Amino acid sequence: MAIKRKKVSVIGSGFTGATTAFLLAQKELADVVLVDIPQMENPTKGKALDMLEASPVQGFDANITGTSNYEDTANSDIVVITAGIARKPGMSRDDLVSTNAGIMKSVTQEVVKYSPECTIIVLTNPVDAMTYTVFKESGFPKHRVIGQSGVLDTARFRTFVAQELNLSVKDVTGFVLGGHGDDMVPLVRYSYAGGIPLETLIPKDRLDAIVERTRKGGGEIVNLLGNGSAYYAPAASLVEMTEAILKDQRRVLPTIVYLEGEYGFSGIYLGVPTVIGGNGLERIIELELTEDEKVALQKSADSVKNVMKVLS
Amino acid sequence: MAIKRKKVSVIGSGFTGATTAFLLAQKELADVVLVDIPQMENPTKGKALDMLEASPVQGFDANITGTSNYEDTANSDIVVITAGIARKPGMSRDDLVSTNAGIMKSVTQEVVKYSPECTIIVLTNPVDAMTYTVFKESGFPKHRVIGQSGVLDTARFRTFVAQELNLSVKDVTGFVLGGHGDDMVPLVRYSYAGGIPLETLIPKDRLDAIVERTRKGGGEIVNLLGNGSAYYAPAASLVEMTEAILKDQRRVLPTIVYLEGEYGFSGIYLGVPTVIGGNGLERIIELELTEDEKVALQKSADSVKNVMKVLS
Amino acid sequence: MAIKRKKVSVIGSGFTGATTAFLLAQKELADVVLVDIPQMENPTKGKALDMLEASPVQGFDANITGTSNYEDTANSDIVVITAGIARKPGMSRDDLVSTNAGIMKSVTQEVVKYSPECTIIVLTNPVDAMTYTVFKESGFPKHRVIGQSGVLDTARFRTFVAQELNLSVKDVTGFVLGGHGDDMVPLVRYSYAGGIPLETLIPKDRLDAIVERTRKGGGEIVNLLGNGSAYYAPAASLVEMTEAILKDQRRVLPTIVYLEGEYGFSGIYLGVPTVIGGNGLERIIELELTEDEKVALQKSADSVKNVMKVLS
Amino acid sequence: MAIKRKKVSVIGSGFTGATTAFLLAQKELADVVLVDIPQMENPTKGKALDMLEASPVQGFDANITGTSNYEDTANSDIVVITAGIARKPGMSRDDLVSTNAGIMKSVTQEVVKYSPECTIIVLTNPVDAMTYTVFKESGFPKHRVIGQSGVLDTARFRTFVAQELNLSVKDVTGFVLGGHGDDMVPLVRYSYAGGIPLETLIPKDRLDAIVERTRKGGGEIVNLLGNGSAYYAPAASLVEMTEAILKDQRRVLPTIVYLEGEYGFSGIYLGVPTVIGGNGLERIIELELTEDEKVALQKSADSVKNVMKVLS
Repeated sequence: MAIKRKKVSVIGSGFTGATTAFLLAQKELADVVLVDIPQMENPTKGKALDMLEASPVQGFDANITGTSNYEDTANSDIVVITAGIARKPGMSRDDLVSTNAGIMKSVTQEVVKYSPECTIIVLTNPVDAMTYTVFKESGFPKHRVIGQSGVLDTARFRTFVAQELNLSVKDVTGFVLGGHGDDMVPLVRYSYAGGIPLETLIPKDRLDAIVERTRKGGGEIVNLLGNGSAYYAPAASLVEMTEAILKDQRRVLPTIVYLEGEYGFSGIYLGVPTVIGGNGLERIIELELTEDEKVALQKSADSVKNVMKVLS
Repeated sequence: MAIKRKKVSVIGSGFTGATTAFLLAQKELADVVLVDIPQMENPTKGKALDMLEASPVQGFDANITGTSNYEDTANSDIVVITAGIARKPGMSRDDLVSTNAGIMKSVTQEVVKYSPECTIIVLTNPVDAMTYTVFKESGFPKHRVIGQSGVLDTARFRTFVAQELNLSVKDVTGFVLGGHGDDMVPLVRYSYAGGIPLETLIPKDRLDAIVERTRKGGGEIVNLLGNGSAYYAPAASLVEMTEAILKDQRRVLPTIVYLEGEYGFSGIYLGVPTVIGGNGLERIIELELTEDEKVALQKSADSVKNVMKVLS
Repeated sequence: MAIKRKKVSVIGSGFTGATTAFLLAQKELADVVLVDIPQMENPTKGKALDMLEASPVQGFDANITGTSNYEDTANSDIVVITAGIARKPGMSRDDLVSTNAGIMKSVTQEVVKYSPECTIIVLTNPVDAMTYTVFKESGFPKHRVIGQSGVLDTARFRTFVAQELNLSVKDVTGFVLGGHGDDMVPLVRYSYAGGIPLETLIPKDRLDAIVERTRKGGGEIVNLLGNGSAYYAPAASLVEMTEAILKDQRRVLPTIVYLEGEYGFSGIYLGVPTVIGGNGLERIIELELTEDEKVALQKSADSVKNVMKVLS
Repeated sequence: MAIKRKKVSVIGSGFTGATTAFLLAQKELADVVLVDIPQMENPTKGKALDMLEASPVQGFDANITGTSNYEDTANSDIVVITAGIARKPGMSRDDLVSTNAGIMKSVTQEVVKYSPECTIIVLTNPVDAMTYTVFKESGFPKHRVIGQSGVLDTARFRTFVAQELNLSVKDVTGFVLGGHGDDMVPLVRYSYAGGIPLETLIPKDRLDAIVERTRKGGGEIVNLLGNGSAYYAPAASLVEMTEAILKDQRRVLPTIVYLEGEYGFSGIYLGVPTVIGGNGLERIIELELTEDEKVALQKSADSVKNVMKVLS
C-alpha cells in the first residue's frame, strides 16, 4: 500500500495562519493547504508560493498550496482554524463574538464536508467559545475538536522565567489552567526551572510580576507592534499541538477541551492539562486544586460562559 | 576561555529581516539583533519578543533583541542588511537607487563603527549596486562584503523544476550567473535532477518557460500578494549564506562579489559561483562560458554599471 | 480516525542493523522493531533498550523494541534486511552466497507472513543477488523489493571529493550504476561540485584515484577496523531510502531494482537511477550510456548473473 | 576575523567514544578528533572514516579524524574522556580504580599539553573519583573539569516513567543527586510528567521499582548485552553536556563537580544540580534537602571517598 504524506489545512492566511503553514512544512510534518476567502485568494497563493520557494534552501519536501476552495482541503488529517477578525476600535466584545462565531460556523461546515475524519484545532478568539462553536457545528466527537491557548501562555511564561534566571528555555516549564489571557489560572506551584519549583528560585514579587506579564502577554505584543498582534509564538504553539497528533506523541499539553464533569464543569470548553496524541485529545488529567485555584478556575469558567451567552 | 554565542545583526525589521532573524535563531546559529530606525523601534521590539516567545516551544536557545540603537549590534560576527525602500508607483528607478544608496551609506557607517571585524551580507535592491555601495563605504576587504541573489534565484528555479518533474527539491539543483531577476544568466547546462542534466529530462520549451518564470519570480510574488514582496525564500537564502560563514562550511553558492578580473570584469559587484566559508568569500570559481553566456553576462554587467552611474 | 506512527522493522541487530534502528528512531520516522535470531535475543533487547534510554536526551519519541519473534514485526510499513554472515577466511564466495540466500529465504517468509503489504529494502551482500532472492521468495511486486548499494557508494565518493576540493559535502554529488564495490560503474560525467562537473575541477589522475578508492571503499574500512566492517555510512544510506518512502519524497536515488528491459537487461536486480517514494520504487530513470559505460554495465551485470547461478 | 569551527576531542574510541563523536558531528557542533592508543590507531581511523562517509547522506559538515597522536587534539574547545577499562572477572574494584586512575593521569597530561584552555568532561568509571583525578592532574580550575552521570541516570528514569505512563519522553523529567548507579540519590519529589509531580501519578510501589531499575540501569544493559555495556544513552548524555557548553546554553543539568562547601561537602567531586554554559560549570544550585536525602547523599559521598582512598 502506497504511503502518502499527511495533510494539514490551515484556515486563515493571516500572519498566524501563514506562519503555522510554514513551520509545519519546514518540519516535513505534512503537505499544507492554506485557505482564505476568495477576495484573499491571490495573496494566499502568493504566500504559499513564497514558502514553497524556500523549500530547496531550507531542505524540506512538502507541498504548500494557497486556495480559497475548500475542495482543496479534502481528506485533511488535521485542520487548524485561525480565521476570524480582531476587535476593532469601537466594536463591542459581543459584536466580535457574533462575527467570529459566524465565521466559525461557515468554516466548520466546509471543513466537515471535505474532511469528515479530521481533527480540528481552533485558535480564533475568544478561543474557548469559538472552539465550542466549532464543536457544535461539526458534530464531531469531543476528542477531535480542541483549542489552543495554554501552550502559548506557558511559552510566554517560560520565556520570562528563563530571562529572569538567565537559564535555557529548554529547562523551564510552566503550567496554566482556564481561559486565555486575563482569565488564565497559572499554577506556579507546578512550574519549574530544571525541576526546581520556581517559588524557591524567584522572589514572590518578581514571580507575581512574571505571571501578570504573561496574562497581558498578547497585549504587550499588540502595543509594541502598533498594528496587528503576535503570530510567531501562536503559530509555534499550533505546530506543537499538530505535531503531537500527527506523530501520536502523547504529549502532556494544556488544551482547551470539552468538559463533562472534569474539574466540576460540564458543557463548556476550558483549558486543562491533557494528553494529546493520534486521537487528538487522548485524555484529560485531573488535578487536586487548592481553594484559591478553584475560585480562579470558576471565575475563568464564568467568563467563558458569559461569552457563550452571546452565542445562544 | 569561555565560549560565547555567535552574534548576527539584521538591519531592517520588515518581513524579510524579521523572517531572517527568526530562522537564524531557530537554528541556534547565533544571538540575533534586529535593527530598524527609531520610528520603528517598538514594532521591531514587538517582533523580536514574539519570536523569543516561540523559543520554548520550538526548542531553541537564542536571544533575539529588537532595537534602533546600533550600540546593541556591537561585535557582531555577521551583519545582514535588508533595509531600504521598495519602488513606489511613480518613482523613477534612479530615485530608488539614490534613496537606497543613502540608506546603505548611513547603515554601513553604523555597522562598521560597532562591528569592524564583521562580514556583511546585503539583500537590498538593486543588490549588485547596493553591495558595491556598502563595500566602498565600509572600507572592508572584499571577502567581507557580499550580496545575495543567486541562492534565491536558484531556489525558485529548483522549486519549479521539482514541480515539473514531480521530484524532491532535495535532488534538483540550479545555477545562475550575473544580476538578479531580469539580468539573471541561467546556466541550464549546469542544472540537474539527481545529477542528470535537465536538458535531457525537460523539453526545451518547458525549460525555457521555467527559466523565464524564474527571472520574473520576484514579480510573480509581488503580483499575487498585491501589497508587498516575497520574504520567506529571500530570508531562507540569507540564512543559508549566514550559516555557511558561521559554520565555516565552504559551501558552493552563487554570490554577488567584487570582481577584479574574474570573468573579464573589474571594479563591479556581480553574481558568480563562489565558495563561502569562515572568511566570508573564500574564493571565486571561474568557469569557461559559451559565447551566448558571455554575451548574457556582459549584458548583466552593463545593467549593473548603469545603475552604478546613478551612484557616482 | 486515529493517527498511528509508522512502523519499520530492521532484521539483523549487528552494528549496521542497530545503527539503522537508532538513526530511524532519532528522526522520529517510525517506531522501530529490531529483530535477530533467538540466540541473540538478549543482546538485541539490550541494544534497543540502550537506544530508547537515549531518547529523552536526544529528544525523540519513538519506541524501539528488540525481539527474536517476528510477530512483533506485524504490519510494518517497511522492513530493512541487514541479516547475514560476512565472508570468513577460507570460505568460498559460493558458500557465502548459499548461506546468505538461505537466511534471506527464511527471513523473507517471516517478514511476508506478518507484513504482507510492506516494502523491503535489502542490504545483505552480495546485495544484487540477495535482493533477487528476497523478491522471488516474497512474491511481492518489484516496486516493493529494492536493494541498497549506490547511496553508500556515492556517499563515499562524495566524501573523498569534498576532501579533495575542501568543500562542503552538501554541494558534492556522485552517480553510480551497476553492482556494489568492484562492480560499481561510476558516471563521473554526472558528478559535480556545486553543479560544476568534477572533470573540470579535479585532474584526471586524482579523479581516477578517487573512483578507485570508492570501489574499494568497503575494503578500506574492513582493513582499518581489523575486525568487522563499515556500519555508520551503510546505516545512513538505509535510513535515507527508508525516509524517502515513509515521507513519499520522490528522491532520485541509485537503487538496486528488478530490471525488465531497462538498460537492456531483464530478470536481474541491478543498480540504476530511480525515483523512490511512497510506493517504494516509483520509476526507473533510463539514461543514454556511452559505449564504455555500456561495457562496464554489462560486466557488472555478468558478475551479478554469476552470483545468481549459485542460487539456482 | 575568520570564523573557525569549534573542536572537540573524544579520548577513547570504544563504542561510547565513537558514538559520542558521531552524534557531535551529526549536529554540526564541532570538528571531532577521536583518540585512542597507538595499538588502536587503525580501528580508530576506520571508525572515523566510516562516520565521515555518512556525512553526505546525513547532511552534516564536520571533520572526524581518528588518531593516536595527541598533537591532533591541539586547541580543542572541549575534551571528552571515555578512555579506561571495564572491570573484568576476578579484578578487584581497587585494581580497577588504580588502573583507570593511571589512564586518567596520562590522558590528562596529554590533553593539557595541547589544549590548555579546554573544558574536560569525564565519563570513565568510577566517574566521581576519575573526574577528581583529572582535576588534580590538570591543574585546571574546577569550572573546566566536570563529570557525567546524572544526565544518563535521569534519562533512564525518564524512559521508564514515560513507558509506565504511556506519555512522551519530552514531558517527563527526573532529578538525581550524588554518585552514579547504586549511589544515586533520586529526588522523586522534583520529578514530573507534564509538570505534575510523579508521586501523584504513579503508585509508590511502582515508583520505587522504577527508581530501583534506574539505579541498576547500567547493569540491566550489561546483563542483556552479555558482552559490553551501554553506549547509546551514555554518548547522548555526553553530547548534551558538550552542546550546552559549545552553545553557551546555560542548561540546568545534574553534573559531577568539585564541591567547596556546597551541600556540606568539600574537596570531593559529587553529582549536584548545576548550570552548564560557555564557562563549563556556571554555577552550582543548592537545594534544601530532607533528612532522608541528606543521609543518602552522605552515604553517596562516603562511597566516593572510599574510592578516592585508593588513589592517595
